[in-house]
Amino acid sequence: MEQIKSYIEANKERFFEELFGLIRIPSISSMEEHKPDMEKCAQYWHKLLLEAGVDKCEVMPTKGGNPVVYAEKTIAPNKPTVLVYGHYDVMPIDPIDLWNTKPFEAEIKDGKIWARGADDDKGQSFMHAKAFEFMVKTNQLPCNVKFMLEGEEEIGSEHLYGFCQDHKDMLKADIILVSDTSMIAPNIPSITTGLRGLSYWEVKVTGANRDLHSGLYGGAVANPINTLCKLIAQMIDENGHITIPHFYDDVLVVSDYERSLMAQAPFDLDKYKKELNIDDVCGEKGYSTTERTGIRPSFDVCGIWGGYTGEGAKTVIPSEAHAKISTRLVPNQDFNKIGKQFSAYLKSIAPASVKVEVEFLHGGDCYVCPIDMPAYKAAEKAFETTYGKKPIPTRSGGSIPIIAGFDKILKTKAILMGFGLGSDAIHSPNENYPLEQFFKGIETIPYFYKYFAEMMA
Amino acid sequence: MEQIKSYIEANKERFFEELFGLIRIPSISSMEEHKPDMEKCAQYWHKLLLEAGVDKCEVMPTKGGNPVVYAEKTIAPNKPTVLVYGHYDVMPIDPIDLWNTKPFEAEIKDGKIWARGADDDKGQSFMHAKAFEFMVKTNQLPCNVKFMLEGEEEIGSEHLYGFCQDHKDMLKADIILVSDTSMIAPNIPSITTGLRGLSYWEVKVTGANRDLHSGLYGGAVANPINTLCKLIAQMIDENGHITIPHFYDDVLVVSDYERSLMAQAPFDLDKYKKELNIDDVCGEKGYSTTERTGIRPSFDVCGIWGGYTGEGAKTVIPSEAHAKISTRLVPNQDFNKIGKQFSAYLKSIAPASVKVEVEFLHGGDCYVCPIDMPAYKAAEKAFETTYGKKPIPTRSGGSIPIIAGFDKILKTKAILMGFGLGSDAIHSPNENYPLEQFFKGIETIPYFYKYFAEMMA
Repeated sequence: MEQIKSYIEANKERFFEELFGLIRIPSISSMEEHKPDMEKCAQYWHKLLLEAGVDKCEVMPTKGGNPVVYAEKTIAPNKPTVLVYGHYDVMPIDPIDLWNTKPFEAEIKDGKIWARGADDDKGQSFMHAKAFEFMVKTNQLPCNVKFMLEGEEEIGSEHLYGFCQDHKDMLKADIILVSDTSMIAPNIPSITTGLRGLSYWEVKVTGANRDLHSGLYGGAVANPINTLCKLIAQMIDENGHITIPHFYDDVLVVSDYERSLMAQAPFDLDKYKKELNIDDVCGEKGYSTTERTGIRPSFDVCGIWGGYTGEGAKTVIPSEAHAKISTRLVPNQDFNKIGKQFSAYLKSIAPASVKVEVEFLHGGDCYVCPIDMPAYKAAEKAFETTYGKKPIPTRSGGSIPIIAGFDKILKTKAILMGFGLGSDAIHSPNENYPLEQFFKGIETIPYFYKYFAEMMA
Repeated sequence: MEQIKSYIEANKERFFEELFGLIRIPSISSMEEHKPDMEKCAQYWHKLLLEAGVDKCEVMPTKGGNPVVYAEKTIAPNKPTVLVYGHYDVMPIDPIDLWNTKPFEAEIKDGKIWARGADDDKGQSFMHAKAFEFMVKTNQLPCNVKFMLEGEEEIGSEHLYGFCQDHKDMLKADIILVSDTSMIAPNIPSITTGLRGLSYWEVKVTGANRDLHSGLYGGAVANPINTLCKLIAQMIDENGHITIPHFYDDVLVVSDYERSLMAQAPFDLDKYKKELNIDDVCGEKGYSTTERTGIRPSFDVCGIWGGYTGEGAKTVIPSEAHAKISTRLVPNQDFNKIGKQFSAYLKSIAPASVKVEVEFLHGGDCYVCPIDMPAYKAAEKAFETTYGKKPIPTRSGGSIPIIAGFDKILKTKAILMGFGLGSDAIHSPNENYPLEQFFKGIETIPYFYKYFAEMMA
């Protein structure tokens, strides 16, 4: 097993070449114009996995969405099976002018790979292909392996739910292995045991039937931007509580004991503020920064637009104002229920002088991973082997809605062995993935297979 | 004098041709890319005025801004002098997809001219050129006339103040005549006796030094959009009062008697709401709709942007959020003072978790016209002649900051004989100017000259 280090060393130039080819395909799932790139990216994975040593691989259609790449390698029917899940789609790249490199032309600089998808999730899922390749080539694979790569994770995995429903047998596994999260620091391994859910909406506020002159009408007719701001402002009170009625009704209260355990994870607030260049953090009263993102819901406007946004001054009361709004949810909040509560509340507080429309864009439930299951123990031991210390269980503020879906549809738990770092700027300009994390990931994954197979034997 | 009607009839096709040529030049003053169109438009006016019969005309540079077109026709030094002021610049045309015609290709349809500038102010100032042409050609001009057309009215006339300062003698006149406002209705003539001032700013709220993943940071780090909305929401209280400290300190209180006179102007709230397709109006408590735009200040966000505004859902906490904000001011508010108050207040209520910047974009003071001066009486009589009824004095909610500037620098009052209508959609898509208003304007203006010369004799 220790040959993995020399295998990486001997093959790393080829690894980069293959990964950079994957990154070069601009597979932005939220943009219609990149539709052909989704197919291209799936085909690229098809080739990657066949070369890595799977028995068979297929690019499979979903009902109306982007294709899924499915592959498998069977050792023996009585051996345990690991299903590796990842996604080949990426986030949009704007604001483009803030990038220091070309987003789809990966560059290695300062010990990091810089590109959209370098971490999320092309870099991280690629580690699995290479760890698997090593185990096959050196005849050390101790269990059956399946791969499933989807192309809609960044837009809510809409069509993967149906795909899972339709292929329950094919996807049967003892555990789902995922690298799409991050760890505390390069020298502090951690395993994500919780993910927030989310509900994402687009809001449109309409005032008059046309843009109005702000002098002739200002002060007498509702301004949809002023109104939208007022509505948004009312969603969070002075204690950082979300004001939507019944919003917290289903929130699973985390015990003081559990909170005290979580508080042991190292966190340096000064460093955090310095790294983000902010003078202060803010959030819900009575909770720490880690708790605010880990165990509490949040309400964020992800985008807002309306009126004149060009050069100079235009005096206008626009006819419309828009916002994209996301809430992150925690166990046991239901994203559909929350969506209905939000929409009803927003409309109830809107003045008669405007019309308000809410469109549901996407959503997903949260996930909690039990730390006493064999897969968790195997992952823990794998990290211990390569890092020399036990990983800390952490709750991530992010969402991978389909993970809760797997639990529900396939009745299979997932283990989240993420090798990203908080500073990787995923979803932002200048996304990057440190080489150290990339190599350490490829090195650690084979041990997971080894220990998991031993524990399940 | 009555020949004016037949003169219009005989020449209207030529008038349209000339006006449409003027409209065809996209002289949007707020956009750098249209810089060459400003010069082109000034040259077009130069030709128009020479052909209309001025003694001399010159395109004169301003110090750093768009050129001014100046022309004059002297009858006799001892005769009174009227200075006609107008502007050849127009507003931007976005949102472009809401236009039913090409903004710069004027079309006549349903008895109206449809185009950017059809009313504001190409159509209205063009009426003066044609009324003047008629008087010259028929040898009826009873006074000296000067023309001044500027190219920066829509962006605050920044360089016209200095131009006036530098050319006080050249611009000497007994009255300044302006058509850049509107009247109550086609059959209810009115003269604008008051204009609101304005102060216009751009606000930038900065949170973290980069866009953040809304899952990993949501709830713990300030979201600049949420914060901007909260700041804007705090600017107006539940009674529609602007909350900036000392904002109302200098507001000239309008007496109950004056308010009762103003209330006599016909206003149909149901029609107003129907025409705008709104269920309700809104504004400052204790004031009517007409008062809210006429004698009270207002606070409007003219544009807002930040975060992801593209297709689909991107879960991001943006680094920045922006807004363009305008307040309309009433006598005796000072736009510079208000700007400082706004900036100080905004910064004082901003949380430590963000940085706030305020940039002043433009501003201007308000104007009030005394209704006992000869020019007002002459205008009143001119309207009576062509409309068969006395015009009503009204206060407009709009701003023409340079009108207050003329008063201050040139010590010359202005008379606002506007022929626009509230439904002309100036500053909006589908700007239009009814032919009836256009012709009635050309017909009425010569009578102003006649009566003004008689009264000043």
